[in-house]
Amino acid sequence: MSKIGTVSTHQATLSDDRNLYIIKIGGNVIDNSESLHVFLKDFTALPGLKILVHGGGKAATQLSETLGIEAKLVDGRRITDIETLRVVTMVYGGLINKNIVAQLQRFGTNAIGLTGADGDFIRTKKRPVNAIDYGFVGDIDEKSINPNNISNLMEAGFTPVFCALTHDGEGQLLNTNADTIASALAVALAKLYDTTLIYCFEKKGVLKDINDEDSLIREINPDHYNELKTQQIIHSGMLPKMDNAFNAISCGVKAVIIGHSDDLDKLKHNKPFGTLLSKS
Amino acid sequence: MSKIGTVSTHQATLSDDRNLYIIKIGGNVIDNSESLHVFLKDFTALPGLKILVHGGGKAATQLSETLGIEAKLVDGRRITDIETLRVVTMVYGGLINKNIVAQLQRFGTNAIGLTGADGDFIRTKKRPVNAIDYGFVGDIDEKSINPNNISNLMEAGFTPVFCALTHDGEGQLLNTNADTIASALAVALAKLYDTTLIYCFEKKGVLKDINDEDSLIREINPDHYNELKTQQIIHSGMLPKMDNAFNAISCGVKAVIIGHSDDLDKLKHNKPFGTLLSKS
Repeated sequence: MSKIGTVSTHQATLSDDRNLYIIKIGGNVIDNSESLHVFLKDFTALPGLKILVHGGGKAATQLSETLGIEAKLVDGRRITDIETLRVVTMVYGGLINKNIVAQLQRFGTNAIGLTGADGDFIRTKKRPVNAIDYGFVGDIDEKSINPNNISNLMEAGFTPVFCALTHDGEGQLLNTNADTIASALAVALAKLYDTTLIYCFEKKGVLKDINDEDSLIREINPDHYNELKTQQIIHSGMLPKMDNAFNAISCGVKAVIIGHSDDLDKLKHNKPFGTLLSKS
Repeated sequence: MSKIGTVSTHQATLSDDRNLYIIKIGGNVIDNSESLHVFLKDFTALPGLKILVHGGGKAATQLSETLGIEAKLVDGRRITDIETLRVVTMVYGGLINKNIVAQLQRFGTNAIGLTGADGDFIRTKKRPVNAIDYGFVGDIDEKSINPNNISNLMEAGFTPVFCALTHDGEGQLLNTNADTIASALAVALAKLYDTTLIYCFEKKGVLKDINDEDSLIREINPDHYNELKTQQIIHSGMLPKMDNAFNAISCGVKAVIIGHSDDLDKLKHNKPFGTLLSKS
């Protein structure tokens, strides 16, 4: 598909009242105050209903180190023990989330900062202990999100800002991957809105050559994705993001865009932005 | 006034759809997990619209100490420097607030955890630097709270849980006394609801003798309050709480109750609870 294809998708997105953008920003955006400032301003300028989902950034790791809590890894996988859960509750749910909300309010977005416990918006199951005990990690399933509940909040005039925490409904907060939260929100809310899911990070999108920002791939469909995986052009950290994205599309999400947080304003101006993942 | 007077006030409160309870819990309740559990269960059992406001507890002081941040006092007044603001944002806005929300969800209250930045619910002014620079402390004035904004959230089916943080509307979070937040919310929302303000702490109410829980004063009106102050029966820490309370009543709040957090269930059962502050 051509650039024009991308533009028309965005135009359609901006002209419909039932449109919803779910935008996830990663830790690199959060750790760079200038990038975060630009992003939150552009987020505010985007018309219509919006949800922001944010990851962690360096603050949690730094606080853990200062407190002498060692990062626990088993087979290269990070474990959320009770001390780490305490730290991420403070940093994700408090420090990062509430400062983002205060900034958004400054720009004019009527933001409300949330975990999945708030409003019972995202109820997950603690990951079962098999070969590895991941600790206080919550896995999302198809029953985790009631879209009407979140819709109530948005229709009352508020813009949700989710951090990477959920709950089990029994009083326990749980750590949940922010990319997964964003795609699960998109899938659930696609039942009510024409939903576009956007992953903003520190690259221009999916690149053929990770060291060359000019090697941006404008569009990827599932067949093309399989090719890129076979060629190992897409690998490691991008794989779960892309898998989440294509899963979201197959579950009714209109489009997924992966792009640079500095470029979000292109969406408002109907300019091509990042890599568009499409159904076919 | 008699006990019966107290009971009838509570009965009136429970039978009206436009009733709102604003309940503040102090640090001693938060630090005692058993008391907190009982309180949150009783809070959930109370019918109608409710707002919870919570103070800090020991966790912020403990985290500051662990991080080597010294408590700064000038003339006996606590100063919120930028490091302390960071700590209270993590502890009040994250750790305490989100764990309370998760517990409330467990019991069936559809809670949403908030600072004053969320939803622009409480916008304050940074305290001017005169003799003392209090740092990042926000003072509430009569324009700080738009009751319709909070009403929107409650009417959408959510129960607000506020911590002791506000914002200045320019992106800055500010530390604000939780007692003051509770009374300011009560005054603002008294324009829309029949509002009862309840301060829950670790005593049965206002006591004639602080060491004798049987010396509870059942009701106090403004004249009586002046007498109790003159006799120094009410002094030190109780004074700002009481001043806030009588100010709230003079500004339209229906009643203020000061009582033990363990006794909140008495309200539901129309039994006398704590000390009732009344207009006359």
